[in-house]
Amino acid sequence: MALEALKSRRREDYKFTLEYRTRWSDNDMYHHLNNSIYYFLFDSVVNTYLINHCGLHPPSSPQIGLVVHSHCDYFAPIEFPAVVDLALRVKKLGKSSVEYEIGVFVKGEEAVKAVGGFVHVFVERESRKPGVDGMGAPLREGLREIVGAGVDAVERKPKL
Amino acid sequence: MALEALKSRRREDYKFTLEYRTRWSDNDMYHHLNNSIYYFLFDSVVNTYLINHCGLHPPSSPQIGLVVHSHCDYFAPIEFPAVVDLALRVKKLGKSSVEYEIGVFVKGEEAVKAVGGFVHVFVERESRKPGVDGMGAPLREGLREIVGAGVDAVERKPKL
Amino acid sequence: MALEALKSRRREDYKFTLEYRTRWSDNDMYHHLNNSIYYFLFDSVVNTYLINHCGLHPPSSPQIGLVVHSHCDYFAPIEFPAVVDLALRVKKLGKSSVEYEIGVFVKGEEAVKAVGGFVHVFVERESRKPGVDGMGAPLREGLREIVGAGVDAVERKPKL
Amino acid sequence: MALEALKSRRREDYKFTLEYRTRWSDNDMYHHLNNSIYYFLFDSVVNTYLINHCGLHPPSSPQIGLVVHSHCDYFAPIEFPAVVDLALRVKKLGKSSVEYEIGVFVKGEEAVKAVGGFVHVFVERESRKPGVDGMGAPLREGLREIVGAGVDAVERKPKL
Repeated sequence: MALEALKSRRREDYKFTLEYRTRWSDNDMYHHLNNSIYYFLFDSVVNTYLINHCGLHPPSSPQIGLVVHSHCDYFAPIEFPAVVDLALRVKKLGKSSVEYEIGVFVKGEEAVKAVGGFVHVFVERESRKPGVDGMGAPLREGLREIVGAGVDAVERKPKL
Repeated sequence: MALEALKSRRREDYKFTLEYRTRWSDNDMYHHLNNSIYYFLFDSVVNTYLINHCGLHPPSSPQIGLVVHSHCDYFAPIEFPAVVDLALRVKKLGKSSVEYEIGVFVKGEEAVKAVGGFVHVFVERESRKPGVDGMGAPLREGLREIVGAGVDAVERKPKL
Repeated sequence: MALEALKSRRREDYKFTLEYRTRWSDNDMYHHLNNSIYYFLFDSVVNTYLINHCGLHPPSSPQIGLVVHSHCDYFAPIEFPAVVDLALRVKKLGKSSVEYEIGVFVKGEEAVKAVGGFVHVFVERESRKPGVDGMGAPLREGLREIVGAGVDAVERKPKL
Repeated sequence: MALEALKSRRREDYKFTLEYRTRWSDNDMYHHLNNSIYYFLFDSVVNTYLINHCGLHPPSSPQIGLVVHSHCDYFAPIEFPAVVDLALRVKKLGKSSVEYEIGVFVKGEEAVKAVGGFVHVFVERESRKPGVDGMGAPLREGLREIVGAGVDAVERKPKL
């Protein structure tokens, strides 16, 4: 079952990892990270990768990434002041779009706490439409580096 | 197609609506609401309903709601200082769990901007396990009031 | 004493008010609005005023407002799902800078819960330096409208 | 002048430091950390210290810390994906209250970007009033460890 597969994710299943401290305000009234906070973390690991490894410069790049879908499954709580490992891979790489998967681990613990992801469509900054040639070469080359093993990164026929 | 159905959601498809102002910091570097912010809004309309109409008192209620899954599809951007209408309905009502759907509309505009939702599992505060009798009666009765027309609210045989 | 004066602020002491719903995630582990959230609210009422009444268009205006100082005094807690009134006035209006004061009230209650503010310096978008003629006329005229009674809005000799 | 003294703060002026990554959503429309975000960071370094070095356990400790005042001066912008050093010291240690000062530095840069702080009053969890003996011994002892050199930590005669 799909959910069981996600629950058994390990750090080695991913290609790029960043360590992030949680913040006091991430905990909600129930004393654990609020579900929305995971999406802030997803955005952070993805955009750090895009900026540092794919040449993205958010204030001026000709293309920007629009999020058209996002989701997350939560398996166990995380509590501030935990330090988390955000582990990233590309699940599908299309012509103009990319689907990321992120696993959230707690420093020093093996079991994954949550797995989620989102879809970026790269569009021209002004028109907010995809370019005729899709995403630019630096983005494509950087993203290809973190395509996960065993996932369907069909570049010629994007299905997104 | 499922996505097309979501894109055509109207305010009348929902049962409970709250008006929310966006905040300056909701906009990210691309000048529109960051994708994560929608989840803060989902949490807010749901918990307002649970507190005001289902007897939930987060600091002391015997049961609390854990989010085990969340997702969102984004159709068009929203920009601060827009005022949004958050429209809520229950999509599935199980023994211990409930799935919500939320439509996000901009004040004065008809087309839905995003549709998402999440699954709450109500658990005992200390054990963090579902109660043997599922969610309490006030929760169930309150949630039953906002079950959407045409959605499968099978209370006897929860499939969640 | 200064703090006592702040504690006795009333809605009538301000010139522009917006109603804002609090969000679930605004509450921290102690079940009340986290102290940081007030600054999000300050930013929101001020920027709404600047956009709607002073001609500011954040993505493209020639000048932008940089925050160089902020502060807040907290008198009583606010708890989600409270609705707040954010009441704004200009405390000092200088050549390129402006100091705002914001009172935070809970809908239906008279006593002020918190009073804070911040200083905006308007700078040229690219150089991030104040313009030779200070802030533009639409900003100045809009801000002059909400200068509080009895506060020292010395426009000729800014002391900021 | 006081502001000049703050601008010349160095890492060595502080007693406890944590490294924090910034998040994508920390940047606002002007492409730098929003002024409110600094307060989230202040809360995070302080509460990490209280939990790890002063025995605080937020869900159940007999005393909790209420923030009654906060402030910040901003000297230069910080931009995601910068990594920051949050440097903490105690500025005043009273019977029931403590004033913190936090310097915000960017990894690899010497000049301080912002200096701020806040005042915590430790109160009984239920009554929300200070205890007759003030803050508990573990809190006091932990906080005494990070009292800054040259600052007036008058424990006998709290002036807060």
